[in-house]
Amino acid sequence: MFGKLLEILRNKSPLIHNITNYVTANDCANILIASGASPIMADEKEEVEEITSICAGLNINLGTIKSHTVPSMLIAGKRSNELNHPVILDPVGVGASNFRNDTANTLLSKLKFTVIRGNLSEIKTLALGRIGSNGVDANKKDEITKENLEETVAFAKGFAKITGSVIAITGGIDVIADEEKAYCIYNGNPMMCTVTGTGCQLSALITAFVSANPLYPLEAAAAAVCAMGIAGEIAYKRLTSIDGNLSYRNYIIDAIYNMTPQTLKEGAKYEVR
Amino acid sequence: MFGKLLEILRNKSPLIHNITNYVTANDCANILIASGASPIMADEKEEVEEITSICAGLNINLGTIKSHTVPSMLIAGKRSNELNHPVILDPVGVGASNFRNDTANTLLSKLKFTVIRGNLSEIKTLALGRIGSNGVDANKKDEITKENLEETVAFAKGFAKITGSVIAITGGIDVIADEEKAYCIYNGNPMMCTVTGTGCQLSALITAFVSANPLYPLEAAAAAVCAMGIAGEIAYKRLTSIDGNLSYRNYIIDAIYNMTPQTLKEGAKYEVR
Amino acid sequence: MFGKLLEILRNKSPLIHNITNYVTANDCANILIASGASPIMADEKEEVEEITSICAGLNINLGTIKSHTVPSMLIAGKRSNELNHPVILDPVGVGASNFRNDTANTLLSKLKFTVIRGNLSEIKTLALGRIGSNGVDANKKDEITKENLEETVAFAKGFAKITGSVIAITGGIDVIADEEKAYCIYNGNPMMCTVTGTGCQLSALITAFVSANPLYPLEAAAAAVCAMGIAGEIAYKRLTSIDGNLSYRNYIIDAIYNMTPQTLKEGAKYEVR
Repeated sequence: MFGKLLEILRNKSPLIHNITNYVTANDCANILIASGASPIMADEKEEVEEITSICAGLNINLGTIKSHTVPSMLIAGKRSNELNHPVILDPVGVGASNFRNDTANTLLSKLKFTVIRGNLSEIKTLALGRIGSNGVDANKKDEITKENLEETVAFAKGFAKITGSVIAITGGIDVIADEEKAYCIYNGNPMMCTVTGTGCQLSALITAFVSANPLYPLEAAAAAVCAMGIAGEIAYKRLTSIDGNLSYRNYIIDAIYNMTPQTLKEGAKYEVR
Repeated sequence: MFGKLLEILRNKSPLIHNITNYVTANDCANILIASGASPIMADEKEEVEEITSICAGLNINLGTIKSHTVPSMLIAGKRSNELNHPVILDPVGVGASNFRNDTANTLLSKLKFTVIRGNLSEIKTLALGRIGSNGVDANKKDEITKENLEETVAFAKGFAKITGSVIAITGGIDVIADEEKAYCIYNGNPMMCTVTGTGCQLSALITAFVSANPLYPLEAAAAAVCAMGIAGEIAYKRLTSIDGNLSYRNYIIDAIYNMTPQTLKEGAKYEVR
Repeated sequence: MFGKLLEILRNKSPLIHNITNYVTANDCANILIASGASPIMADEKEEVEEITSICAGLNINLGTIKSHTVPSMLIAGKRSNELNHPVILDPVGVGASNFRNDTANTLLSKLKFTVIRGNLSEIKTLALGRIGSNGVDANKKDEITKENLEETVAFAKGFAKITGSVIAITGGIDVIADEEKAYCIYNGNPMMCTVTGTGCQLSALITAFVSANPLYPLEAAAAAVCAMGIAGEIAYKRLTSIDGNLSYRNYIIDAIYNMTPQTLKEGAKYEVR
């Protein structure tokens, strides 16, 4: 099914509205194009209602968040909800400041998110109001492992039930869950952590997959996570001994560009729980 | 003549002031350096008058536009006009919101632009107040083709007459026109659409060429468009089967860096109408 | 000793808070990760005090400075000073506008910087209130050469005495000095000037080295400058005839990623004055 979802994404070429950070905006735009989607970045509150109206989906990312973009997120999110457009939240660095926590809480209380994607620290912060996020990376103790997988699946399903959103917790193993079903995904490569913004890129990619396949948010989000992981695997094989994290970044996006439905279908490594 | 214009650009190394978006600013800076120019990005209204005064040209780009940068565009543009510096407008995504339309109209009414560069949808929106821009990419029906080329040339010359600007409409075929003369340019590769911001990069490159050759704005803009197209051709030939749009981005800028006056002269494919 | 400082950086993996520009933020984030550090970019005044508190060091960069980020710089800098975190200043483009000059003066008067890094034009502007900076690049007459090296060393030591900061003046030759001792560094390649933001990247890298080795700010800053220069040399050797400045950018960051303590130790070319 994942291959089919990619095929539909490439055929529909949805326009994706991104309210995102200035660190990884260029990579997010290029990975959206690589996937078959088309990006527009716009965060001025005077125009976000109109911009999001001509798009097929909205990607909200809290990296480099500013007080004057929060109203833009609320306006665009409300309009997207009215239009039944998929809305994705990437709560980058939540837990690192009260401002990010308050903003995330405000967004969660006022908007309906189709998918919420973060690392385990970030999702726990959202769910439990827990403190202890180490900036933008997951705490070491918040790695998803075989030992805590069952517990993490239960946690994700529970938070999916409360929010009505698909919960995508990404890390060594990825858990993508709605209230009833979870995909545990084993694609990816540890070196992906050495590229800034692979999480942001993945959230953009999820927005693309879900916006092209709005009836299947769980499967579309899982397909995007598999696609990103497979791209990380393909790119890793391409590395020479003198390549480093910047070449790896380039190769990952290149691999999304060249990904076929068949590559995705055959490369996806997951189990359903 | 195009080769000579590049030679002059490389010798003069003009400093270019950019008020631009955060998505493609890095690529614009690097392509400016690749061309022989030197970039400065500055959009704070407290300083743009001074910044633009020490520069040779100004590049105004409406991508990720914010209400607080519009005054900066007006201040810098007015000062550049007073100093007879070339001023270039890239109306990214005009037609996608009233805010962008109003901003573009304000800029057009208060400033004199040396060159206005956009895709056919964007330039039509500016010229005709027409609605229907699909975000930042041209509408499919707004492609320049052999069938509508004559009509597009007439339209560009007419809009050039009204504005007093060189009009650069870029797409499958590019039309660069002043009131009397149009260059129809056949360089480029369709894959350039898969890289975010090739339009922004081209506007920066036009600013560099025109700022180094202010007496020949039409020819300098046409030379920049040829240079970008040839770079797209060279970069395309360099692609391997595992390269994608991000490697292509890198190769395009690399090709500008390595472009010689002779490469430009020999590779330029155009007719004058 | 430089090798040891890199080893400690890789082991400690300090989290670095960056208040920086949108042009080179992505490169700065990736070079920080390449060095072993972890980046967070945050400039909203509501959160910078908390953000900087969970970090090990603060990198303040004046590129694309805005009036509303100056308070953020002051809040974060003050908190970092209280916590004895290293604070680095990169006065990008100082001399190009009164706004940048005033901001730099305000920062220098209210904060204690561990290291101040700039080109000779920028550091002279800070020290002497001298006018004549040509945007973001050093004036040609402000190159460090063998002829003016002794004079530059004396100038750097003098400014280090006044400010209590390590002064890092980078260019053809780099001079890194405290009040008593200066490292004159001969690593690097002239082509590094063709990549936008190598200066910003270097300031980020200095922040990483100094934050991991806070007791040795002079040596850590010198080690970072050597590492960047060696990376520029390694990347230059990797270039093919069709590579240009964008591939060079990628290769430089790749070379930091692959740099071992031994490469740094053996490749460092410097004298102490």
